[in-house]
Amino acid sequence: MGEVEPAAEQVLLLECNLDDTTGEALGYAMEQLLATGALDVWFTPIQMKKNRPGVILSVLCRPTDGPLLRQLMLQETTTLGVRWQTLHRQIAERRTDTVQTVWGTVRRKLKILQGRVVSVKPEYDDCARLAREHHVPLQDIVQAAQRAPVTDSTD
Amino acid sequence: MGEVEPAAEQVLLLECNLDDTTGEALGYAMEQLLATGALDVWFTPIQMKKNRPGVILSVLCRPTDGPLLRQLMLQETTTLGVRWQTLHRQIAERRTDTVQTVWGTVRRKLKILQGRVVSVKPEYDDCARLAREHHVPLQDIVQAAQRAPVTDSTD
Amino acid sequence: MGEVEPAAEQVLLLECNLDDTTGEALGYAMEQLLATGALDVWFTPIQMKKNRPGVILSVLCRPTDGPLLRQLMLQETTTLGVRWQTLHRQIAERRTDTVQTVWGTVRRKLKILQGRVVSVKPEYDDCARLAREHHVPLQDIVQAAQRAPVTDSTD
Amino acid sequence: MGEVEPAAEQVLLLECNLDDTTGEALGYAMEQLLATGALDVWFTPIQMKKNRPGVILSVLCRPTDGPLLRQLMLQETTTLGVRWQTLHRQIAERRTDTVQTVWGTVRRKLKILQGRVVSVKPEYDDCARLAREHHVPLQDIVQAAQRAPVTDSTD
Amino acid sequence: MGEVEPAAEQVLLLECNLDDTTGEALGYAMEQLLATGALDVWFTPIQMKKNRPGVILSVLCRPTDGPLLRQLMLQETTTLGVRWQTLHRQIAERRTDTVQTVWGTVRRKLKILQGRVVSVKPEYDDCARLAREHHVPLQDIVQAAQRAPVTDSTD
Amino acid sequence: MGEVEPAAEQVLLLECNLDDTTGEALGYAMEQLLATGALDVWFTPIQMKKNRPGVILSVLCRPTDGPLLRQLMLQETTTLGVRWQTLHRQIAERRTDTVQTVWGTVRRKLKILQGRVVSVKPEYDDCARLAREHHVPLQDIVQAAQRAPVTDSTD
Repeated sequence: MGEVEPAAEQVLLLECNLDDTTGEALGYAMEQLLATGALDVWFTPIQMKKNRPGVILSVLCRPTDGPLLRQLMLQETTTLGVRWQTLHRQIAERRTDTVQTVWGTVRRKLKILQGRVVSVKPEYDDCARLAREHHVPLQDIVQAAQRAPVTDSTD
Repeated sequence: MGEVEPAAEQVLLLECNLDDTTGEALGYAMEQLLATGALDVWFTPIQMKKNRPGVILSVLCRPTDGPLLRQLMLQETTTLGVRWQTLHRQIAERRTDTVQTVWGTVRRKLKILQGRVVSVKPEYDDCARLAREHHVPLQDIVQAAQRAPVTDSTD
Repeated sequence: MGEVEPAAEQVLLLECNLDDTTGEALGYAMEQLLATGALDVWFTPIQMKKNRPGVILSVLCRPTDGPLLRQLMLQETTTLGVRWQTLHRQIAERRTDTVQTVWGTVRRKLKILQGRVVSVKPEYDDCARLAREHHVPLQDIVQAAQRAPVTDSTD
Repeated sequence: MGEVEPAAEQVLLLECNLDDTTGEALGYAMEQLLATGALDVWFTPIQMKKNRPGVILSVLCRPTDGPLLRQLMLQETTTLGVRWQTLHRQIAERRTDTVQTVWGTVRRKLKILQGRVVSVKPEYDDCARLAREHHVPLQDIVQAAQRAPVTDSTD
Repeated sequence: MGEVEPAAEQVLLLECNLDDTTGEALGYAMEQLLATGALDVWFTPIQMKKNRPGVILSVLCRPTDGPLLRQLMLQETTTLGVRWQTLHRQIAERRTDTVQTVWGTVRRKLKILQGRVVSVKPEYDDCARLAREHHVPLQDIVQAAQRAPVTDSTD
Repeated sequence: MGEVEPAAEQVLLLECNLDDTTGEALGYAMEQLLATGALDVWFTPIQMKKNRPGVILSVLCRPTDGPLLRQLMLQETTTLGVRWQTLHRQIAERRTDTVQTVWGTVRRKLKILQGRVVSVKPEYDDCARLAREHHVPLQDIVQAAQRAPVTDSTD
């Protein structure tokens, strides 16, 4: 490799196991946690004691948001405890460009590793909006946006 | 193959999706369904609408037990509907034998395909009981029971 | 049981396995399928050949909606085939009532088996709206609504 | 928030990946680990190399129980290694009360955040015992116990 | 819609639940089932009785391959029974073309609905081979192959 | 216990969440990560925001391999960030022996705890090769190899 690694940062991973919160309440908790600053929220299906299906609620956040989000996990779920740890994180360099499709404008995210664009990703929200407006399959728009050449403009 | 297939039979598969029953209640429902005659009961983790983690409750049963078990599913879970279908089932021929280990007697289930023993399976309940009594790892007993030669006795 | 079973009906279950559709596109497909009349849509995580994580997309629908929803599954996912079957379905009798909480009105769904109310379920959408407006935990409202006695009014 | 956070503590999370332990042996291992002092034990389904379905066995425990429980994991499963880490944990304040239902007495766990009861949870074991004895659905008892007002008694 | 639906066909779905087959043996069973003519093979993680993590082994096949594949499932796993059903299947029309990338030739599969190409999918095996040979990320090749225009040639 | 614990070591766990990488690309990434020195690679199915099924890609590796494998994760998947942590690991003592079956030679791995062989595991690759060559069920060979007594030879 022999190259300078991109700067690493630190994030918190907050987790709790749940076997007595309903799926409904978990959907609501995800919405509230994201609205309160969580970087990412996800559920992992697990198998708990006494033949109970359960779920791990995982929240990734900035270190400063830890106390508030732990409080919210305790409020919006039935858990009696939240466990957490500090993780390192390495972030890829990225920039955006904008391309025209026959249905409208789509922003794209370009991932850059060692100075080279390694992946071109049309923004989901742009593609989904155009697909709904024009009643065309989402993949038509995604693939059209992906086929357009990379431009220099960043916005 | 060119051989006579073992006789097939018919079973029912009853299922419902749940996003508002807790894991606790599901553990209890599994216990009740098995006690009421279900051949097998299991949970499959699924992902439902509105970001809700959910579970499919599946019950395999004899056709005559269908109405009673569907009633129990409606009673012990929050579901408002149970769906079901009839499946064919092919069963392997089997017999049992009994072997002595240094910790005690273990029954085994022998699976027979086309007249040949293809698998030897020590009874879990026997092995677990001996493991608890003698404070030895379960695998010691399972492997000892598996190493013993197949006998002709069936009991 | 000795009682008259509630009338059964028939539904279709449409399914396909996907190992080359992204999670993003699946979230969009779920939205479109529900908007087009599906009774329920869910994802089951599976493990496919060549070490690929995959997903089963399942759609439950009325028999008359089958052709249109199959077409939509073929359009909005990468699948080359959709498989389907007809299932029986038994539905619980239900009615609704309305209760007052200190935060506002909540509708509830009452499940009735053999003439008896067996479960009282506050409407998630009402509870979630009140929780957002009053900045209180969702469970406060759900539990308050559940504690109120069952009334005769249906609306 | 502006309030004093509840005191945090530390716990260990011990884990191993398994693709050659049977489900039967894992059920036994869960029982043994809980009986030996684990705070919680759960299984997460994973997908391992060579197209193998696998399971992560996770054990949460007090720091002093780590060596004994790691030894048990090595004994009761086929794993050749156990990995572990130290996690922080924040615990909600809680107290219990007792309520009378028409079927009998039920203990409840009250979760307290910032001096306020945020959730009322009937003890599963009490409810399940009464449901078995009186042949009524578990949810009848849980909901009756949940509807009763919070009392001051702690036991 | 108003159009002729593509011809449907029938397939078999063979399934068994496993809690005493190891992940290793299941990886081997998948390989053997695919080599013996299965159209698709997959694993679904489930939660079985007695706190056992389990797996459903699912095999999709032509009706004429059912007896042989059921026999193989009984031989290569510990199951004592295989259940099965007949499903309908609707297949999308498809054709292939071939495109040149800077790393070499890639075949593509074109999915056609109602006479229109709705999706363009570079062959995974071609892309993976080129990625290994040229030491470039797989996505570079997939995206390059996807960007090339659709041609009329079919091969 | 009262015995000397086996020496512990340290490993890294690298992880990222993916909702826009296909299963196909993930199968390829697993192959590349194992070929580049990862100790273990696995996928965990998760449920991400906006109703998206996702996957956690987990890589266990030696501390010195961390930078290279993180780079590969960024290259071969769509992720924009990789998180990681250092874990402790306790390894069981092990040795191997070789046994003869009627189909050929099979190596076995013996796990040793506190000086005692606690598990005997025939090498999967040996058993699978013999099963393919002799057209016998894999379990026949595994069980035959397991039944053979432990020898002193190590190779």
